[in-house]
Amino acid sequence: MTKKNRQLSLNAFLHDTGHHEASWRHADSSVERAHDIEFYIEQAQAAEAAKLDAIFFADSPGLWSATPYRPTAHLEPITRLAAIGARTQRIGLIATASTTFYEPYNLARLFSSVDIASGGRAGWNIVTTQSDSVARNFNLKQIPSPEERYARAQEFLDVVTKLWDSWEDDAVLADRASGLFFDPEKVHAINHVGTYYQVEGALAAPRSPQGRPVYVQAGSSNEGRAFAARNAEAIFTAHQTIGDARAFYDDIKSRAVKLGRNPDHVKVLPGISPFLGDTEAEAKELQDHINSLTVPAYGLAQLEGLGGVSLGHLDLDEEVPLELFAGSGDVLDNNRSRLMVVANIVERDRPTLRQLLHRLAGGRGHNVVAGTPLQVADIITEWFENGAADGFNVMPPLYPQLLDAFTATVVPILQDRGLFRTEYSGTTLRDHYGLPRPDSLYAGVADEREAELV
Amino acid sequence: MTKKNRQLSLNAFLHDTGHHEASWRHADSSVERAHDIEFYIEQAQAAEAAKLDAIFFADSPGLWSATPYRPTAHLEPITRLAAIGARTQRIGLIATASTTFYEPYNLARLFSSVDIASGGRAGWNIVTTQSDSVARNFNLKQIPSPEERYARAQEFLDVVTKLWDSWEDDAVLADRASGLFFDPEKVHAINHVGTYYQVEGALAAPRSPQGRPVYVQAGSSNEGRAFAARNAEAIFTAHQTIGDARAFYDDIKSRAVKLGRNPDHVKVLPGISPFLGDTEAEAKELQDHINSLTVPAYGLAQLEGLGGVSLGHLDLDEEVPLELFAGSGDVLDNNRSRLMVVANIVERDRPTLRQLLHRLAGGRGHNVVAGTPLQVADIITEWFENGAADGFNVMPPLYPQLLDAFTATVVPILQDRGLFRTEYSGTTLRDHYGLPRPDSLYAGVADEREAELV
Repeated sequence: MTKKNRQLSLNAFLHDTGHHEASWRHADSSVERAHDIEFYIEQAQAAEAAKLDAIFFADSPGLWSATPYRPTAHLEPITRLAAIGARTQRIGLIATASTTFYEPYNLARLFSSVDIASGGRAGWNIVTTQSDSVARNFNLKQIPSPEERYARAQEFLDVVTKLWDSWEDDAVLADRASGLFFDPEKVHAINHVGTYYQVEGALAAPRSPQGRPVYVQAGSSNEGRAFAARNAEAIFTAHQTIGDARAFYDDIKSRAVKLGRNPDHVKVLPGISPFLGDTEAEAKELQDHINSLTVPAYGLAQLEGLGGVSLGHLDLDEEVPLELFAGSGDVLDNNRSRLMVVANIVERDRPTLRQLLHRLAGGRGHNVVAGTPLQVADIITEWFENGAADGFNVMPPLYPQLLDAFTATVVPILQDRGLFRTEYSGTTLRDHYGLPRPDSLYAGVADEREAELV
Repeated sequence: MTKKNRQLSLNAFLHDTGHHEASWRHADSSVERAHDIEFYIEQAQAAEAAKLDAIFFADSPGLWSATPYRPTAHLEPITRLAAIGARTQRIGLIATASTTFYEPYNLARLFSSVDIASGGRAGWNIVTTQSDSVARNFNLKQIPSPEERYARAQEFLDVVTKLWDSWEDDAVLADRASGLFFDPEKVHAINHVGTYYQVEGALAAPRSPQGRPVYVQAGSSNEGRAFAARNAEAIFTAHQTIGDARAFYDDIKSRAVKLGRNPDHVKVLPGISPFLGDTEAEAKELQDHINSLTVPAYGLAQLEGLGGVSLGHLDLDEEVPLELFAGSGDVLDNNRSRLMVVANIVERDRPTLRQLLHRLAGGRGHNVVAGTPLQVADIITEWFENGAADGFNVMPPLYPQLLDAFTATVVPILQDRGLFRTEYSGTTLRDHYGLPRPDSLYAGVADEREAELV
């Protein structure tokens, strides 16, 4: 594929009233609609009208935060996808779900059903969850170690992959004359017996339009990168600078190549959270206004939880001491990888505590930018054309206003540059991302014991 | 409430191409659309146009049957409800889910989200699942005993009830000025510590429009009846005769009264599967035709699985020996209660094996009737007015044709008799069923340790 033909992928990451933690306090926010499915359907329809690749929902099976200072309750995302799928035709539908807290048979069914119902538009953002408070919703006192979570995640993924493949593509006969609804030779018990799971199968559903939903992953820890390089087809990641993003991009692509994968089938999609204005000053003014609405107690609690540090003794308007986040450079888990982003900001920019809270308020470590449509399009183009991104997970600080501004002003510039589609060329999320449709593991395998994951 | 004002409840039990196991082989069946969500959306819209109370989906997290002779794969029902909810406005949305194979926190979220997204139309048909083959999809070799399943079900229900109540109705403030999204005094950790579950909470969602989805139950075993009398607000049940139905109705209502419940808040809804024709002969002709399409190997496998008996040595056209199902009168579990229906048919009607298979092919033990709209309306009226039913779970043998016929011809007769609504008077499923909206267990409770289930 030449650079000229290479196309950006753009997702709309839908998140309550916006990605800025104080967006809900804006006078024009949609906070009264934070739990209204129509609010999300409208945004998905707007993203589809702009030909975006997908919408995306984060998730955690617990409150986002124990503090009362922002929308912390959230509708379950897979049922949201199902509702949105019934009111859209083309846009991809990605939701996050945890391998630590679901049964693989249940989760395989949920995503299979969304993929079937939507005509092949489902994607699964695979996470292992890292919160003790979530663990306490599921019979545990604390979250398992990253090593155990990722070992379980890999086996979980192997199980659901087998389940999604358990009906071969041509297994359904629906032959009125013979009375055979399916071909028994083409529906396979998976007979999985592993460390964490014993699952007989087959899945209670025929193979879905995409064969399997798109495998998405969002962890940047060592375990997360290894898992992503082996399994993921799209990776959501957080970087503040093009340098950091390029290093991550190179690392993931080379890991994938070493595992024998085609690096073009591993899309790297950093987050970008754009404040837009007709002028740069107008964009920054909006950013400053929303920053001014933050509740410091919320940001402090988030930062203390992330870093395992105490911040209560610091003055909001004094420089953050360099030593506070020192030693965070060793990426052990996702908390630490996000913490490294914080340490880098502190070291590079020497912000006051208030300034640091504002920096994180916008995108929780993702790249927050404020500028004109042209400036934002230039950043996207620069990252895309210089080995830092295959596309972006777009995280508007305020919904729907800043998604609407993005699709109305930034997308056309990217289209004019030939970097982004003006019409969908396919019908599935795999089509949009340029990913192949996988064959069933069981296709052409006479003895199902021979069908093993490689 | 006087008899005159008492209103029927009518659900459309959606099930693939129809409830008759051979419906898919009919020349005009919709078998090609068996996994097309639009097929189910259209039916739900038709049921809503006829002002029915709800649609209903059965479920089992496994194949319906290992035999290839009928549609055995099925879309996951909660995501189906979500999709249908996004395309309907008033009709109730009931899906089946198993307490044995879900985590309570996950299931609480799924139904809460459907209830919120649909404006208060969700119902949960609570089942414990009784199949060993399903157990083998979930790390087990065989299904737990009925006693253990129902003990787990009760604790599961207690947990999800607490979760659904964990946000008081007025917990969301969304107060831009103060920066408080919720009132911390009104969001409660549930801190459940029981035999099977330890769940901290709160739920990751505000309280839903109905407070809790409607609690539906469909078991008729001893354990099932006790569970239903204690917990259920609507009960789906299978009876062949008005006598059996009245005995069940009386038993359930008196059990509920003994537990201090209002018997009007426990709706008893038998299944009815109507073949309709302009004349009785025409209806029976359609029934005979679809019966003729059955594959005996399918029905035999179902019956053998149900009864734990071998039937292969019998001639299809000889009378079923009375002793074959003798001793099935002791209702131990749901399989046995369904088996008792079979034993009663054999004893009462002395059918050949083929005739017995045809009897069961239509509704798996539910009441299959063939007649004119007036005849079917008369049966419904007779059962409703004589203490056998508060309404019906309508199970058309062939979709969409026999649902359309029911709504076009039977419903108007019931409306003319003043037994069924001509317009919805409320917006929620609780409104349709005439059920109260429960207060949160935590409402007005200062110390959450005081909030205990009674």
